[in-house]
Amino acid sequence: MKSGLDDAFNPETVADVGASSKRGYFFLRSFLRFKGRVYAVNPGRSEIPELGLKVYPRVTDIPDKVDFVFVETPAHTVPGIIEDCVKKGVKLVAIFTAGFSETGRKEGIELEEKIKEIIRGSKTRVLGPNCLGLYNPRIGLAWRANLPLDAGDVAFISQSGGLANLVILYGHTRGLRFSKVVSFGNACDIGLEELLLYFKDDPETRVVAAYIEGIKDAKGLAETFLEVSLKKPLIVWKGGRSEDGARACASHTGSLAGSHRIWSAVFRQTGVVEVKTLEELVDTALTFSFLPPIRGNSVGSISISGGASVTISDLLSEAGFRVPPLREETIRLIDEEVRRVYPEGISVINPVDVSAAYYNPGVVSTVIDVMTGDPNIDLIIFDLPVMYLAYSWRQSDAFRGEFMEALIKSGKNAIEKGKPFVVVLSPVGDEALWVRLRDTLVKEKIPVYPDMRRTCDALRNAKSYYEFLEKRRKAESHLADELEAPLLKVT
Amino acid sequence: MKSGLDDAFNPETVADVGASSKRGYFFLRSFLRFKGRVYAVNPGRSEIPELGLKVYPRVTDIPDKVDFVFVETPAHTVPGIIEDCVKKGVKLVAIFTAGFSETGRKEGIELEEKIKEIIRGSKTRVLGPNCLGLYNPRIGLAWRANLPLDAGDVAFISQSGGLANLVILYGHTRGLRFSKVVSFGNACDIGLEELLLYFKDDPETRVVAAYIEGIKDAKGLAETFLEVSLKKPLIVWKGGRSEDGARACASHTGSLAGSHRIWSAVFRQTGVVEVKTLEELVDTALTFSFLPPIRGNSVGSISISGGASVTISDLLSEAGFRVPPLREETIRLIDEEVRRVYPEGISVINPVDVSAAYYNPGVVSTVIDVMTGDPNIDLIIFDLPVMYLAYSWRQSDAFRGEFMEALIKSGKNAIEKGKPFVVVLSPVGDEALWVRLRDTLVKEKIPVYPDMRRTCDALRNAKSYYEFLEKRRKAESHLADELEAPLLKVT
Repeated sequence: MKSGLDDAFNPETVADVGASSKRGYFFLRSFLRFKGRVYAVNPGRSEIPELGLKVYPRVTDIPDKVDFVFVETPAHTVPGIIEDCVKKGVKLVAIFTAGFSETGRKEGIELEEKIKEIIRGSKTRVLGPNCLGLYNPRIGLAWRANLPLDAGDVAFISQSGGLANLVILYGHTRGLRFSKVVSFGNACDIGLEELLLYFKDDPETRVVAAYIEGIKDAKGLAETFLEVSLKKPLIVWKGGRSEDGARACASHTGSLAGSHRIWSAVFRQTGVVEVKTLEELVDTALTFSFLPPIRGNSVGSISISGGASVTISDLLSEAGFRVPPLREETIRLIDEEVRRVYPEGISVINPVDVSAAYYNPGVVSTVIDVMTGDPNIDLIIFDLPVMYLAYSWRQSDAFRGEFMEALIKSGKNAIEKGKPFVVVLSPVGDEALWVRLRDTLVKEKIPVYPDMRRTCDALRNAKSYYEFLEKRRKAESHLADELEAPLLKVT
Repeated sequence: MKSGLDDAFNPETVADVGASSKRGYFFLRSFLRFKGRVYAVNPGRSEIPELGLKVYPRVTDIPDKVDFVFVETPAHTVPGIIEDCVKKGVKLVAIFTAGFSETGRKEGIELEEKIKEIIRGSKTRVLGPNCLGLYNPRIGLAWRANLPLDAGDVAFISQSGGLANLVILYGHTRGLRFSKVVSFGNACDIGLEELLLYFKDDPETRVVAAYIEGIKDAKGLAETFLEVSLKKPLIVWKGGRSEDGARACASHTGSLAGSHRIWSAVFRQTGVVEVKTLEELVDTALTFSFLPPIRGNSVGSISISGGASVTISDLLSEAGFRVPPLREETIRLIDEEVRRVYPEGISVINPVDVSAAYYNPGVVSTVIDVMTGDPNIDLIIFDLPVMYLAYSWRQSDAFRGEFMEALIKSGKNAIEKGKPFVVVLSPVGDEALWVRLRDTLVKEKIPVYPDMRRTCDALRNAKSYYEFLEKRRKAESHLADELEAPLLKVT
């Protein structure tokens, strides 16, 4: 394996080869947001006046070093361009062009082999072909003009460019921020395993996620999975689990999906968190990115409605959690505060259903704060029903501000104290308000999920990872005990 | 059992007893939208000037017949009011007030027994206590001012008032329209079984759904389930499946949740479609309400991205569907049309991933139309990724209109020809556009789901119902064969 990718993934200059007015300079326009220097290459023209850019005939003609090259020319021209890149000392090439090994056709396979030969022994690394390449928001590098440029701590590795777009865009609305996203397509050079090892050690990455359709060489992958997940949460979405899905994979990236029974076993044994949809991937990554570890299964659940309390209890149970009765002191403190604003008082065992007192900022703070202090509660779920809020908030804007302030302050405090706190925010009743509230909360790094099932699935996924780590820790300390045991027996 | 509920559920006059300025006349304001005559009753005042209403001291003082009474006074006053209602010949009373048997306290249980005694032998029927009563949008009767008044073909029966609100509001944004919704609370008179039988025969109802926490008397319920589901799809959301959920039920509606193993067995044997969340209930009801029966498991899947094709294939397989290769004639027709707009041509086996040709209205029509005509395809799923559309539509509004027109025309045609057609529309990339597109499609009665998992779950639920009907039909015709068999043997 070649040396680290860090240099290749942090270019200072970028060149787009084959930018075309037919596609409205789709990619080039996005590269103009790059914080370094940007060049356009196209033998057919000398300038793009509408973008104020001079165009060079070849990469080798650029009078500057070139670190990163994005290739969007027809397949048969690609080997020549790669030759120029090697000559120029380019560090990373991303080949967007399709029509290589994924077609299953002889010409495509041979073209791809040619690329491999050209870069052999050089310092030039290649992503693709049939990929979108590198998204590194910290330096303003993105392949689409609508991809956001604020950076964070989640890395995403994707065999599908389309899904990389979806994960970035959807993740962003949910509050996820990415360290880097890599779309690796046919993986003629840089592949899954190398990327996993890179992100394991990337200090900017706290959570690693990947979409995989299949791999060409499975040797060592399980060890790599384990190596990563012992250091950081590793989320894998495996496409092609089913027979029909595998057939779709073959015509998509030309990869063999493999038996899903084997994949699942490998995931379980190596601590990989398996997800099955875009939504579950983003929900789960959000949980890891925003929350401290989940160290137990006792949930404190707060809601306004009896029906919601029942639902969340059922779904949590099915996800391996409990909603245990609160300890007496906790109940007394909540009851006291609730009675202050709602004289009739309500019984608050758990789930806490404070009914009409729900709207009171003091009640919100108290309930969250005492649960944060209750050692029998491992995590807190706050059900925020837009429907009811929309109604009461129409009455008073000031009230809304106070309510959200109390929620954010107490929620953040819980998270800072190491107690996971999440909000279930369903769009029912007012979709515009839903978007506004969600954006307000995720800006404060409070995770928000759109319904109870997805909340429970994400929390279960995260819990399973921390349980895996704990089991490993115990097994290792047990092993250490055994190694010491003979000595103890001797004494 | 008393006579039918039809008269009780279609009142011509409504009276609100106990409307109070403290609650801002919350319920009374909503009743003002009722198409018949509305009266206010409160012994403490003679008029509500802000609503332009005269107030009567007692129901018996109203100089008109009174068909429906909504009671929102303190628990101890309720029996007296019910006495007046019986005297006045009121057909239906909904008791909003809580504090009866659901508290588990002696006084509450006794008060509820008193109500039962008062109505015994009378024509007055009671919903509740501890309920929201009756939502009948066709006559403008709703318990909240923000509940919509357009009527449809789905009935919802709910033991929880809060969930009734959520189902109506969420269902409405998804395109569901209701024949009637009944919140029955403690069920001191009208209960689950009677409501199920009522909706079985209600000509305005095509789909019946229910949220149940527990029942007091299980005798005969399985037979009722079967009776309904042999005639109409019956969807049941059972709260309190888990131990913690059952505890939440007990403090919510005072009902015993019962063993979920038994409930599940009953559901399976009686053709009841079980759902576990608000979202699944609405998704499933939508499928039944908008689509013809699903008579097979072969799906034609259309999408723009390879990754999406893989995901939908995997999830469909896990839901018991297949994405089989299309027959040659279908492929040829699609290929021809795609080639017309996208000369390179794409292989379109199934899932059909037409890539860049996706945006072409002619391609959209052709793909849907030929799948509609393909006897090997039982239902069609169209993946509409807002992310890509948002981009291309920013370029041209005219194009957008043409695209949607083609989609709607061909989609409606499929449904009219008895071939279920659904759209997967995820909000990724543009949440405002997502709402607009969804609203456009559901107005045309094309079902839209927000992600692939939920699409597959809803289709699986619907398929399971039609499979149940088919099995019953076969079993019955087999039975008929057996009854005839001896005669045949004799000849």
